[in-house]
Amino acid sequence: MSEPKLSHLNARGEANMVDVAEKDVTSRTARAEGFVSMQPETLDLLERGEAKKGDVLATARIAGIMAAKRTPDLIPLCHALALSKVSVDFTPNRTPPGLHVTSYVKVHGKTGVEMEALTAVSVACLTVYDMLKAVDKGMSFSGIRLLEKTGGRSGTYVAEGG
Amino acid sequence: MSEPKLSHLNARGEANMVDVAEKDVTSRTARAEGFVSMQPETLDLLERGEAKKGDVLATARIAGIMAAKRTPDLIPLCHALALSKVSVDFTPNRTPPGLHVTSYVKVHGKTGVEMEALTAVSVACLTVYDMLKAVDKGMSFSGIRLLEKTGGRSGTYVAEGG
Amino acid sequence: MSEPKLSHLNARGEANMVDVAEKDVTSRTARAEGFVSMQPETLDLLERGEAKKGDVLATARIAGIMAAKRTPDLIPLCHALALSKVSVDFTPNRTPPGLHVTSYVKVHGKTGVEMEALTAVSVACLTVYDMLKAVDKGMSFSGIRLLEKTGGRSGTYVAEGG
Amino acid sequence: MSEPKLSHLNARGEANMVDVAEKDVTSRTARAEGFVSMQPETLDLLERGEAKKGDVLATARIAGIMAAKRTPDLIPLCHALALSKVSVDFTPNRTPPGLHVTSYVKVHGKTGVEMEALTAVSVACLTVYDMLKAVDKGMSFSGIRLLEKTGGRSGTYVAEGG
Amino acid sequence: MSEPKLSHLNARGEANMVDVAEKDVTSRTARAEGFVSMQPETLDLLERGEAKKGDVLATARIAGIMAAKRTPDLIPLCHALALSKVSVDFTPNRTPPGLHVTSYVKVHGKTGVEMEALTAVSVACLTVYDMLKAVDKGMSFSGIRLLEKTGGRSGTYVAEGG
Amino acid sequence: MSEPKLSHLNARGEANMVDVAEKDVTSRTARAEGFVSMQPETLDLLERGEAKKGDVLATARIAGIMAAKRTPDLIPLCHALALSKVSVDFTPNRTPPGLHVTSYVKVHGKTGVEMEALTAVSVACLTVYDMLKAVDKGMSFSGIRLLEKTGGRSGTYVAEGG
Repeated sequence: MSEPKLSHLNARGEANMVDVAEKDVTSRTARAEGFVSMQPETLDLLERGEAKKGDVLATARIAGIMAAKRTPDLIPLCHALALSKVSVDFTPNRTPPGLHVTSYVKVHGKTGVEMEALTAVSVACLTVYDMLKAVDKGMSFSGIRLLEKTGGRSGTYVAEGG
Repeated sequence: MSEPKLSHLNARGEANMVDVAEKDVTSRTARAEGFVSMQPETLDLLERGEAKKGDVLATARIAGIMAAKRTPDLIPLCHALALSKVSVDFTPNRTPPGLHVTSYVKVHGKTGVEMEALTAVSVACLTVYDMLKAVDKGMSFSGIRLLEKTGGRSGTYVAEGG
Repeated sequence: MSEPKLSHLNARGEANMVDVAEKDVTSRTARAEGFVSMQPETLDLLERGEAKKGDVLATARIAGIMAAKRTPDLIPLCHALALSKVSVDFTPNRTPPGLHVTSYVKVHGKTGVEMEALTAVSVACLTVYDMLKAVDKGMSFSGIRLLEKTGGRSGTYVAEGG
Repeated sequence: MSEPKLSHLNARGEANMVDVAEKDVTSRTARAEGFVSMQPETLDLLERGEAKKGDVLATARIAGIMAAKRTPDLIPLCHALALSKVSVDFTPNRTPPGLHVTSYVKVHGKTGVEMEALTAVSVACLTVYDMLKAVDKGMSFSGIRLLEKTGGRSGTYVAEGG
Repeated sequence: MSEPKLSHLNARGEANMVDVAEKDVTSRTARAEGFVSMQPETLDLLERGEAKKGDVLATARIAGIMAAKRTPDLIPLCHALALSKVSVDFTPNRTPPGLHVTSYVKVHGKTGVEMEALTAVSVACLTVYDMLKAVDKGMSFSGIRLLEKTGGRSGTYVAEGG
Repeated sequence: MSEPKLSHLNARGEANMVDVAEKDVTSRTARAEGFVSMQPETLDLLERGEAKKGDVLATARIAGIMAAKRTPDLIPLCHALALSKVSVDFTPNRTPPGLHVTSYVKVHGKTGVEMEALTAVSVACLTVYDMLKAVDKGMSFSGIRLLEKTGGRSGTYVAEGG
């Protein structure tokens, strides 16, 4: 009885970059999300205080976009892709207090961009932490997940509630 | 009345790399953690099946360690540091099903290694997702947070339950 | 009345990598130039002296070419492109004394290579400065600009005097 | 009669990374500047229009800071340094129309940070070009130069008018 | 009488990235090999001892695969390519004692992947050395060479005994 | 009975970056070598022909030096070090025909620079191959090894015949 196939491992269970030579070049997209939980006072600072005037979200957005482009440098078995679009967005949330982070990535290529979308969200969350950690070391990230992907042989995937 | 100070923003709210020239060179450490939620069948695969024989966790460990070293390349305002130790560990968990990820980073330097520890955990989680996504696209990451830091002027921080 | 459109900002003025999915894959080229002003004695050294025997220009040429390939790592919203050709050239100039730097970049892709050509010139200038700064810290760069681009929807652009 | 010494070339004129092992660890700083010339309408857009609301300068600032940290990756013979501070600033100018860019870099180390300051300015200029090139391909960079350096054996250097 | 043409040098003998715009996009592959010579006791350790339980080969495999993706960042005149497959394999050898390393790289593109295959082998060898050097500093690498390439205008090449 | 200790593996055989916090900061050096075997005609070309006029060795030297600085990005468990000197040298050899490559690296730090010296040689060899492969695909690398290291707790190591 065969087991589900893990594409990144060969028959001996060793890691390798899977062959995508025969895959079709199609339009592919992915959306991902995550949430940075913080103290209400930290959110105040982000929305009303010193940080509002400043570059916290602009910095995190740039960091997320640049990280998406560097995904194959970070994730060992990811294929390099010439991304055609990357965006990262933020929505402050009052209850619970924190910041909702979403990303959207698009490519015309042979493999999907799920990892690029998840990497953009993760690095944007890390940068928000870095920018605000002087006032709140207890921030945490949760709900980092793929919301949707389209294109490719496996077609469309939509997360529960995604 | 003054507001809490965000070290990465100047008086005009613009991003800049804060001056650490006058900070002491001390021994500093940080521990971080995170959790990859997955289907019980995915955990089975990781523990007993094809993946067990293979390199899933070895690959994620290497990715996390390498990412810690590249933190200042990813997080725009992080200072470069010559890390003296990085480790990443994994503990499978049955209820709820998933993988607990922890990191430990040490440096003898002028700034803390919180971001390095959090980056190691985040990229290890992303790599686990990449290695297993062929069978479970619904995995998500939660509870990514700083567990503890020691050293530096602000001294020791221990997270609730950390 | 509408304003000219900045493609790298969305309707809220936030940075994002513009969608090039629908753009045509065409042959595109760009040429850029710049000038490193220096003392006549520094130019002598470059042309006749110790430096002539050496690797100053070879090093600057290599640095410019490698930088062109890394443009999307440096310029936050640039798309990755598989460049098909990069060259960097130098012409010493007596009046005023200095070094004229030009670059030429070619691609078969969805976006232009203006940034790659300008990045090659800029990093070549920086490397010339680094190689010669022991004798002349007052060198400066001027006239760094796009000379010409061809291909793409906006067609050919030729700079005044370019 | 001996010629001025180029530190990056050996006796055969070959490139090498000069030995700094015996140099003192001292506090060192560098300031650099540059100017992006543009059409008055482009400056209007940057100051009053769509771009004002947005992230043009925030993006260029981040790009300059990150590039300073990556200087030894770009300039072949530069030594790696753990920078203790980097900042990049912008001042719009009406006559002539354009943007004045300055950088400040600080380190406690064995070599100076002139190249880091010049690289920060250069990459900030390149990013401004990238963000605004949709409306003005004729922008050019001039006056990119070292304004001042302090520290190290050669002591303080101040540019004419710097 | 004309000399054999070195594609990476122009008529003045200066380095440049050769123009591949007119080359066909075809399927191309390359295989390379190398050998890490070591003491018999080091090989024992790799096969039977502490190292066996561990991650020596998994780490070297990942390092080789990641290096293949970064070849154009390392080799100055290499073109960037979106690799469709990379694998690295190891076979212990008793006489002489050591580890045989092979790589296989595949692309659908305009240039060959010989350099990517050789880079994967070289960095895998370096990583094996790093992992085992605590017990054997005398290890050396030999026979690093291209075994075979297919595709492209120059067609198939097979090394003697390859 | 205990086995020789592999510093990069923990008690469970898992990879980790070893703790160097307690190691002394001392002056450390390393020399490495390697040999690129080639056809006599290829060597002629390198010494007398088109390549002589050109940048083959200058390019390979720069590539080796830059690679030494990027060693911790390539070799997963290497510590980052602020190298104080790197040089790469070449000596043509007639019998057998080829190029002898040596490197020398120096640091004032907590870990040795053996890997940096070996990486410099390996990437210099790869670049020579890339520059000459249009005329000789059968080149191979051999004898890549550490010649000597000094400094650190383990003191001086000199290879047989090194």
